[in-house]
Amino acid sequence: MKTKNETKIIAEPGKQDVYIIREFDAPRELVFKAHEDPELIKQWLGPRDRVVRIDYYNSISGGSYRYTIEDKGGKEIAAFNGAIHEVTAPERIIQTFEFEGLPERGHVTLDTMTFEKLPGNRTRVTGHTVCRTQADRDAMMASGMERGVNEGYEKLDEILKRM
Amino acid sequence: MKTKNETKIIAEPGKQDVYIIREFDAPRELVFKAHEDPELIKQWLGPRDRVVRIDYYNSISGGSYRYTIEDKGGKEIAAFNGAIHEVTAPERIIQTFEFEGLPERGHVTLDTMTFEKLPGNRTRVTGHTVCRTQADRDAMMASGMERGVNEGYEKLDEILKRM
Repeated sequence: MKTKNETKIIAEPGKQDVYIIREFDAPRELVFKAHEDPELIKQWLGPRDRVVRIDYYNSISGGSYRYTIEDKGGKEIAAFNGAIHEVTAPERIIQTFEFEGLPERGHVTLDTMTFEKLPGNRTRVTGHTVCRTQADRDAMMASGMERGVNEGYEKLDEILKRM
Repeated sequence: MKTKNETKIIAEPGKQDVYIIREFDAPRELVFKAHEDPELIKQWLGPRDRVVRIDYYNSISGGSYRYTIEDKGGKEIAAFNGAIHEVTAPERIIQTFEFEGLPERGHVTLDTMTFEKLPGNRTRVTGHTVCRTQADRDAMMASGMERGVNEGYEKLDEILKRM
């Protein structure tokens, strides 16, 4: 029986970054495509009880994106936006990220996603988020983002199986 | 006699960020414009013995930029690029930054420039650079960037006096 792919979220005390590491039973090209193509992103990103609406998403170096998370009834819950520094298929995406619902704007992070080929047509995705301050990092960890990350990647497992 | 405006560069040991703080004898709107308008940026950015060539520069939230530093004879010395997360005139610019000359790509920083109004029509600019790692930060500090920052801001003083 296959072991379930667990998501590791690492936030060392006193630091201002977070690592999110996850393996997938699918080839790197597919896993990368699912992180780059907004039509796929909206099918897996975030918690199970939410719907992603893509406001714009231009997956190129120098592009930008914005998406809104809604409940199943279409009520807006949260919006996120960022600028895309680098898209290098199928290896790396570097972009900024901002949750628009904070009391003030400007708490932006720099996110690097690295896609590694593993034996047996498997892939490791390492997300590295750097916050502007340690306080920003700690607030992000306290925000309950873990459920969204875990459930999102479980939905991605299902999509990759169908692809 | 007026005291010269000194540039403070602060890089605490063991951290992955750098603060660059500088005051200008000019109103905030002008100082902001000089950081936003590529036609002005190319007149002051970098060391005195270099020339800035703007490859592209779209100063809007979601925009991007690239510029090349040349010597006075037109020989390329270095190139830099980034994605622009936020331009909020006359208060704040948030963008990514990458020196293209490193042995590998991906050593990107997240830069936030904050423009504060000071009494007497003066302005304080606080640049906050967050690196992906402490090693990246230490390499940036060791790169001799201080001369470029100091001389660039001295050129900006001269431009602001003429504006």
